[in-house]
Amino acid sequence: MTAASASPLRLGIAGLGTVGIGVVKIIQRHADLLAARSGRPVVITAVSARDRTKNRDADLSNYAWEVDPVTLATRDDVDVFVELMGGHEGAARAATEAALAAGKDVVTANKALLAHHGHALAEMAEAAGRVIRFEAAVAGGIPVIKALTEGLAGNQIRRVMGVMNGTCNYILTRMETAGLPYDTVFEEARQLGYLEADPNLDVGGIDAGHKLAILAAIAFGTKVSFDDVVLEGIGRISIDDIRRAGDMGYKIKLLGVAQMTGRGLEQRMTPCLVPDSSPLGQLQGGTNMVVLEGDSVGQIVLRGAGAGEGPTASAVMGDVLDLARGLRLPTFGQPAATLSTPVAAVASAPAAYYLRLQLMDKPGALAKVATVLGDAGVSISRMRQYGHADTSAPVLIVTHKTTRDAIDVAIARFPATNVVEGEPVAIRIEEV
Amino acid sequence: MTAASASPLRLGIAGLGTVGIGVVKIIQRHADLLAARSGRPVVITAVSARDRTKNRDADLSNYAWEVDPVTLATRDDVDVFVELMGGHEGAARAATEAALAAGKDVVTANKALLAHHGHALAEMAEAAGRVIRFEAAVAGGIPVIKALTEGLAGNQIRRVMGVMNGTCNYILTRMETAGLPYDTVFEEARQLGYLEADPNLDVGGIDAGHKLAILAAIAFGTKVSFDDVVLEGIGRISIDDIRRAGDMGYKIKLLGVAQMTGRGLEQRMTPCLVPDSSPLGQLQGGTNMVVLEGDSVGQIVLRGAGAGEGPTASAVMGDVLDLARGLRLPTFGQPAATLSTPVAAVASAPAAYYLRLQLMDKPGALAKVATVLGDAGVSISRMRQYGHADTSAPVLIVTHKTTRDAIDVAIARFPATNVVEGEPVAIRIEEV
Repeated sequence: MTAASASPLRLGIAGLGTVGIGVVKIIQRHADLLAARSGRPVVITAVSARDRTKNRDADLSNYAWEVDPVTLATRDDVDVFVELMGGHEGAARAATEAALAAGKDVVTANKALLAHHGHALAEMAEAAGRVIRFEAAVAGGIPVIKALTEGLAGNQIRRVMGVMNGTCNYILTRMETAGLPYDTVFEEARQLGYLEADPNLDVGGIDAGHKLAILAAIAFGTKVSFDDVVLEGIGRISIDDIRRAGDMGYKIKLLGVAQMTGRGLEQRMTPCLVPDSSPLGQLQGGTNMVVLEGDSVGQIVLRGAGAGEGPTASAVMGDVLDLARGLRLPTFGQPAATLSTPVAAVASAPAAYYLRLQLMDKPGALAKVATVLGDAGVSISRMRQYGHADTSAPVLIVTHKTTRDAIDVAIARFPATNVVEGEPVAIRIEEV
Repeated sequence: MTAASASPLRLGIAGLGTVGIGVVKIIQRHADLLAARSGRPVVITAVSARDRTKNRDADLSNYAWEVDPVTLATRDDVDVFVELMGGHEGAARAATEAALAAGKDVVTANKALLAHHGHALAEMAEAAGRVIRFEAAVAGGIPVIKALTEGLAGNQIRRVMGVMNGTCNYILTRMETAGLPYDTVFEEARQLGYLEADPNLDVGGIDAGHKLAILAAIAFGTKVSFDDVVLEGIGRISIDDIRRAGDMGYKIKLLGVAQMTGRGLEQRMTPCLVPDSSPLGQLQGGTNMVVLEGDSVGQIVLRGAGAGEGPTASAVMGDVLDLARGLRLPTFGQPAATLSTPVAAVASAPAAYYLRLQLMDKPGALAKVATVLGDAGVSISRMRQYGHADTSAPVLIVTHKTTRDAIDVAIARFPATNVVEGEPVAIRIEEV
C-alpha cells in the first residue's frame, strides 16, 4: 500500500488566526512530504473560526466551514480535532471535551486550557481511548514536550527551567540594550503587537507559568497544578537593576524553575539573575530556551522561536504527524490515574541573592547593614558600593547561598537601622 | 492491568562497556519509574561482553550470560537487542542482522554501523516488521534523532549543523584557552583517555562524519551515504589560526553541515569559522550542539553532553522506552523504499572565507595579493595586517561570499607573485 492509497488522517481545525493559517499552509505546501513521512495523506476536512468573512492568507475553499467549533469537533469526517482558539474556558474547552467524547484525538496549542484543566482532560481522553497532544502549548517551535516525555524518559528529572515568554525577554533585552525604562519598552511592545490583549498574561508571568505547570506535571509525574506556581512578573524590574546586575556579571530573566525538593514540588515563574555567560544569560530578544536536567543525561538546553506562525504551526504539525504515524501516549506521559497529587513546597530552595539598597552617607552605615544581614543568617559573597554626589549611594550585595526567608527577615530589619533609604530590591540568583 | 502485571519488555544487552553498564544501572535504579512511564516492566534477561571476568560497576548476577552476541540476539526471551559493542563490521553487524532476522527490535548506539550499513539494515528491519532505534548514535544525550524525525516532521529541513565530536571541541577549546599547540593538546587528550583507539576517528572527523550522514538521511529523506561526506580533520589547525580568527570575531569548530542544494546533497565535516557570539561559537569543551533549520520552525538549537556513561545511556533508554510504549517508526523516519539516492553536490555552497597568508615585506606586496584575489573573483570584506620585526608579516583576510573553487584558484596563483611565503590557510566561514 502506498502512502497515497492509505486511509487519510482527517483534521478539523478550530481557530484560523496566525497559527491556524500556518497549519493550513504547511498542509497545502507539503502534502507529499507529510504523506511520505507518515505513510498516509494528511488532509483538512473542515475548519471553523469566529469570522468567516475575514480575509485570510490561505485558500480555504476546499474545506467545510462550521460556525460552531463543537459541531466541527464531532463531525464524522474528522479524526483529529485541532484546537487553536485559545482560552481556558468557553468554546475551546467545550469543543475539546466534545471531541474527546466523540472519540476524536485532540491536538492543541492551548497552554491555559492544559494548565487549568489538563488533568480532567487527560482522564477524559483515557476513558475515551483517545490522546491529547500539545507540543505547541510550550515554547513554540521547540520540541520540548517530546524531548522531556520521550527522549529523556529514562531519567529522573531533577529540574526544568525556561525562558518561555518571548515578550518578557524582548522587554528585558530591549531595556538593557537601549537603556530605556520598563514603561517605555512596555508601550513599544504594545504598539508592536507583542502583547496579549490582557498584557498581564505576558508581563505578569501567567502565560509562562501555564507552560511551566505543564512541564512540571510531565517531569515529576504529578497532576498539573498551575495554582501552585509562584508567579512574579517583570513590572518591578528597573533599568537600574538590569545595569547593576550586569556590573556583577548577571542578566535578569523571567525564569521558570520547577524542581522536586524534599519539601515538595517547587514551581516558580519569577525574575531571576543568571550568569551572563550561561546559555540562559546569552538569550536575546523573543527567543525561548528550555533547560532540562536529568539524573543520567545531565543538562540539555533547547533554544528556538517561542511564538509566531511558522514555529507554532511546526509544533502542531509534529503532533499531527505523530498521530498519523500511530505514535500515541498518555497526555502527561503516563496514565492519568498514576499521576500523584503534588505537595507544593512552602519555600523555594536556598540560593544566592542579589540585593540592591540605597545606603545613606552616615558613619558606620555599611557596618549596620552587614550586621543586620549577619544576624539574619545571610553572609555576603561580594559587595559593590557606587560613588555618589548625593546623600545616599547604591550598594549591591551578592549573598552566599541562603533562604528567601532570611533575606526577608533582613529586609524587614533595615528600616530600624536608619541608614537604608527606600525599598531594597532582592532577586534570586539561579544556579544554571 | 497495572504496569507491574503487564508483559515485560525483555532486553538482551551486548557490550558492557561504559554505556552498557550505564544502561544496566538505569534499569536497576529506576525500575518503578520506567514501568510507570511505559506501562510495563522493562527488564534485562541476558547480557554479553568479550570478557566475563572483568570487574564491572554493576551486579549482573541476575542476567543470563552469553559468550556469543549472535546467540544473545536471537534468544527466545529477548524482545529487544541492545547493541552497544561498536564497530561497523564483525560482531556488531552480525548480531544486529541476526536479531532482525529473528524478529527482534534493535536499539543501538553504533554510528559507524548505521553510517555504513544503515540503508540495508533499514530494509531488513522493515522486511521483518521490526524497528531499529539509534538515538545514542548521534550527539550522546541530546534527543536530536527524535527532534528531527518526529518533532520537526512538518518541516522541509533546510540545513542541519553540528559540533558532534566532543574530543575535537575539547582540543580546539583547550588550544585556545591554554595557548598550546595542537600536538601538545592532542597528547594531553590521549593521556586523559578522550581519544578513540584509532584517534583519526576523532580528529580526522570520521566519527562526527558518521553522525552527520545519519542526520542527513533523516533530514532529506535520502539513503544514508557516508562515502559522500567531505571530511577534513582538525590536525592542521594551528594556534595561530585560532588566535587570528579570534581577533576577527570568530571561533574555529569542527562543524558538520548538511544541506540540500540545487546541485545536490552537500555533506561536510570540516573545520569552519563561526561568529564567537553565536551559540556554536560559545560552545566550550566536550559539549555537543546540533542546529536544525526548517522552513516553518526556523532555527532550533540543541545542546548537551555528547558522550559519557549517563548521557549515552539516557539516549539508549529513550529508545527502549519508546519501544516499551509501542512507539514505532521506520528507521530513517519513512519507509526505506521511499528514501531517494542522493546526488552528492560537487562543490560546497558559496560562503565567506578566512584567509591567512604570510606576506613578504616588499613594495606593492599587498596590491599584488589583492589583484590575484580580484582576478579570481574573490572580493575582500575585511583585512588586517600585523606588525612585524621580520621580513614577512601575517595578513588576515575575510572575503565576501565566494566559492571554494575561486579561493583555490587564487591560492594556486599566489606563488607567482613572489610576495607570499609558505602555504596560505583558507577556512570556510559558516553562516550560523
